[in-house]
Amino acid sequence: MVIFKEIEPLKAFLSDKRALDHSVGLVPTMGALHSGHLELVKASKKVNSITVCSIFVNPIQFNNPADLEKYPKSLEHDIAYLNSVGCDVLFHPDRSEMYQKPTTTKFDFGQLDKVLEGEFRPGHFSGVALVVSKLFNIVNPTRAYFGQKDFQQFKIVQRIVDDLNFNIELICFPTLREADGLAMSSRNTRLSDEERKTASVFYRSLVFAKNEIRNRAGIKSINERVVEMCLSEKNVRLEYFAIADTENLNLLDNVKDADRSILLIAGFVGEVRLIDNMFVE
Amino acid sequence: MVIFKEIEPLKAFLSDKRALDHSVGLVPTMGALHSGHLELVKASKKVNSITVCSIFVNPIQFNNPADLEKYPKSLEHDIAYLNSVGCDVLFHPDRSEMYQKPTTTKFDFGQLDKVLEGEFRPGHFSGVALVVSKLFNIVNPTRAYFGQKDFQQFKIVQRIVDDLNFNIELICFPTLREADGLAMSSRNTRLSDEERKTASVFYRSLVFAKNEIRNRAGIKSINERVVEMCLSEKNVRLEYFAIADTENLNLLDNVKDADRSILLIAGFVGEVRLIDNMFVE
Repeated sequence: MVIFKEIEPLKAFLSDKRALDHSVGLVPTMGALHSGHLELVKASKKVNSITVCSIFVNPIQFNNPADLEKYPKSLEHDIAYLNSVGCDVLFHPDRSEMYQKPTTTKFDFGQLDKVLEGEFRPGHFSGVALVVSKLFNIVNPTRAYFGQKDFQQFKIVQRIVDDLNFNIELICFPTLREADGLAMSSRNTRLSDEERKTASVFYRSLVFAKNEIRNRAGIKSINERVVEMCLSEKNVRLEYFAIADTENLNLLDNVKDADRSILLIAGFVGEVRLIDNMFVE
Repeated sequence: MVIFKEIEPLKAFLSDKRALDHSVGLVPTMGALHSGHLELVKASKKVNSITVCSIFVNPIQFNNPADLEKYPKSLEHDIAYLNSVGCDVLFHPDRSEMYQKPTTTKFDFGQLDKVLEGEFRPGHFSGVALVVSKLFNIVNPTRAYFGQKDFQQFKIVQRIVDDLNFNIELICFPTLREADGLAMSSRNTRLSDEERKTASVFYRSLVFAKNEIRNRAGIKSINERVVEMCLSEKNVRLEYFAIADTENLNLLDNVKDADRSILLIAGFVGEVRLIDNMFVE
């Protein structure tokens, strides 16, 4: 695996590859890689000549400085992990390389970045959109791979690709889960043993709600039962549970509309904020 | 000259050219071409293998529907004009081609899109940034050419190139003027004969102010004299006159800082809104 910390040498390297008609797959990450990330790399390797994984903890997408400070880092482990699946290129810039001038560009996506994560993490998606635009222009990938766990993020990226005419195919890859259903996440490493056990409550809530939708329970009652499930666990604080349209993430208020919807949940276990989601189909 | 109305055939054409290592120059316009536009095309032809001129009247950058409605159109003349200077490609999409899905992405550039034009044309620069991003991703140019008359627009485009890491060299080309100093503009064709004569007041104001700065007149007095000059002309309404920093367009309030500044002016002559600017060096 070739490792680049600077933009220009990476661009020159990829430009040479593209001149040979090589396709390029991009897997943007913030490091602290887990099996979910590796599946994205493997999916990219199957169809692209060159796979680039980026590791960059983007400061401007963190609304909470403590969350940025505590975001897990494991670069040596990440490099070994990426080597084990044959990733071709690691792009690992530092902050001054990615933000060479003070940035003032902000994005607004209307309703899409105001609901759910957008409500609880103001400015988050503007920061995501900016760093993803940067990575798209630096790597110029044929395809880019994202995990379904961050589904609202995926919709935002899809929006910038559509609205700004980026010439990139986006792939949303299903969430990988631990044995008890907990969605794999870099933040899981911050959970204590006890918190780790209760953290599956978000997954259990989603499974419960999906079944209730199939049973045509009312949306109000489903919401109440999910709140109860989370409240009954020690150290769990629910931020939101939502049944939403898969296209625009508008909240649904009739269970009849929920047959092709997405359930989204977010909350804290101790001091660690987790999110998860599940399609109803 | 090859003419494309659709995005995909244009992309395929340019992709073949780039595979031959051809450089691409882009001249984005809204049509109703004048000599100023042609100079941009000529400048592009000097250093790029292929020059693409785009003609697209971008509806989302018009804050005033009447201005959009009355924006001059002269496609046949434009095509002849572009042929006369050997432009290689015209990209002339219609609205449904450029906006295939409803667009919700908006940009915010902090102070830079709130002052001057931004104050009088809310939403204008967000629309400009979006359509320029689209054109950049569709054409993928090596260089892009803009006229200095729209200097604040140039700064906005420079900001998205820097902040989103577009791999494009930007060229700001000096404003072309009529014999009496009036800056060439597509909107000039909308002026009546009488209005056309008074329209040079904006140029005369800039020249006057530049001399006063060299003479170390106070900024307040220069402002007052410019307002007087414009008021003394029939059917002229000044929107703003400003002495600003060339980098961030912040207004200057001390003439000592104005030795390397830019003077910007905007207003109406009859129903036609005109802008102009001039460097102090």
